[in-house]
Amino acid sequence: MKDMTLPTRITVVALSETFDLAANMAEVADPRVHLVRPSEVEDPSLVTCALAWLPADDAFDAYPNMRMVSSIAAGVDSLIACPSLRDDIVVTRIRDEEQARMMAGFAAWHVVHHHRQMGTYINNQATQTWDRSFRADMASNVTVGVLGFGLMGRHTARALATMGYKVIGASRSGGEPEPEVELLSGDGAIAETAARSDILINLLPLTAQTRDILNAELFSTMPKGAVLVQLGRGEQLIEEDLLAALDSGQLSAASLDVFRLEPLPKDSPIWTHPKVVITPHKASDTTRSEVLRQLADNYEALVQGLTPPGAVNRGAGY
Amino acid sequence: MKDMTLPTRITVVALSETFDLAANMAEVADPRVHLVRPSEVEDPSLVTCALAWLPADDAFDAYPNMRMVSSIAAGVDSLIACPSLRDDIVVTRIRDEEQARMMAGFAAWHVVHHHRQMGTYINNQATQTWDRSFRADMASNVTVGVLGFGLMGRHTARALATMGYKVIGASRSGGEPEPEVELLSGDGAIAETAARSDILINLLPLTAQTRDILNAELFSTMPKGAVLVQLGRGEQLIEEDLLAALDSGQLSAASLDVFRLEPLPKDSPIWTHPKVVITPHKASDTTRSEVLRQLADNYEALVQGLTPPGAVNRGAGY
Repeated sequence: MKDMTLPTRITVVALSETFDLAANMAEVADPRVHLVRPSEVEDPSLVTCALAWLPADDAFDAYPNMRMVSSIAAGVDSLIACPSLRDDIVVTRIRDEEQARMMAGFAAWHVVHHHRQMGTYINNQATQTWDRSFRADMASNVTVGVLGFGLMGRHTARALATMGYKVIGASRSGGEPEPEVELLSGDGAIAETAARSDILINLLPLTAQTRDILNAELFSTMPKGAVLVQLGRGEQLIEEDLLAALDSGQLSAASLDVFRLEPLPKDSPIWTHPKVVITPHKASDTTRSEVLRQLADNYEALVQGLTPPGAVNRGAGY
Repeated sequence: MKDMTLPTRITVVALSETFDLAANMAEVADPRVHLVRPSEVEDPSLVTCALAWLPADDAFDAYPNMRMVSSIAAGVDSLIACPSLRDDIVVTRIRDEEQARMMAGFAAWHVVHHHRQMGTYINNQATQTWDRSFRADMASNVTVGVLGFGLMGRHTARALATMGYKVIGASRSGGEPEPEVELLSGDGAIAETAARSDILINLLPLTAQTRDILNAELFSTMPKGAVLVQLGRGEQLIEEDLLAALDSGQLSAASLDVFRLEPLPKDSPIWTHPKVVITPHKASDTTRSEVLRQLADNYEALVQGLTPPGAVNRGAGY
């Protein structure tokens, strides 16, 4: 009789200082992944793979043979900043086509919401007011800039172009052209895109270069009355500068999905600013099963000596 | 010295029982079009072209040599139903690529609004509530049906497919395939699309076949908890049936942009229904300059013996 062993599973330790990642992932399962809490690890020297989100500063110290860590999302900023993450540990992120498409839908909602003044109709309904007086600009006269042109930026730009907007994408590295989208690349791309955008969508990864990038100086170069849709990372926006730009009329409105401090504190003036639409970091809903599938794919590539498809360039920061 | 005559302009009479079309169009001008009110016409027998919206029953009686009438929009239902519209008068409508793209954006806003429960976030902002508990279905698990697959339906379907939704289009006549969209045609297409749609968008033209088509029977075949996005014509929806379907839970929400009676009366129960989002017939904002341009193009084709590109099939009703 043959030895009926189960296929080998990758033992993956869940590292997060802010929440119980293992519990969060409990609803989903991947036959290739055995996800454990640090307290459940018997011999840390045998653990070679981690799943992480906001890990503690010393999170990796216990695991001398760690080879790879996967983020649970597209962003890896908090991971790369972790002091105990040794240089030889490969960092991977999730590149989820469907997540990118859902981001496109979420971004499009905000663009149309501001362009067509949908909030006014919601308010008018509350008072049974039928008011057709607002005439939106034709979409071809509205320039929408998309900062960051990875998977999410590309799908967002594509969706908005289909809706008739004039779309500019800003990419550091360039990349494949996209029909009906003007793609700017290189050092001046972000500044030029902002300066031309009636509605500016931020989808940039958080790096040393993009921290605090949404600031008073950038706002001052934008067309008067422009709109900011902030879907990137909270640390990219100087919130005081945004409120000042809204109060001066330099910007006419903003949508914010991410914040420097989350949950956004009750007493933040952002909550009640009449020109701000707030969503609680819900732009991009990850498929948890996809996270585990991609982690396993990335790890299998690594042990075969290949570059994992989700590996990030730690120098670039994404 | 040569006779420096101006190019001949087409005299176009504006026919509407409900509003002053000529005044409405006054802001825009087309060098080929001379738009006049009926009271400004000296010799009605010389008028061969009209622009119309909800014309009076006898609107065409005064013009024995009328050859063509253009609607101001994509819909021609009220025009075709006009008793004084003789069979030999060619009816044209506006086919506006940009208008179709803006319709796609408007439709997408409503789809995302319901799918991602954006209204909840708007409400939560009012009480400074940070609640991330809602997890939307992945877009690929949400089927969006698009009833009517003309220019607007096609652009709407395209935008929604880009956002990751599973999209079905229902077309009477079929037409070109559209990438990432399942296109159903023929007699059963509308019923099958409705029966499979988690979110159903109505963009059908108003004809004898589509009047009252959004009714209790159709709603009963839809998936429980489905959503209706009504952007077609008010006469296609039996409003009482919708309210009953919402109250029973058969439908979970609806967006309505068009109504049997517009403006929607103050005392209509639709205004205050908690599951209904109301917009005041603003889905499709026509470019007025485009209306005059297309009218002139259509008329010039007609006088050259060609079929005007915007001519409708009066038998089919669109």
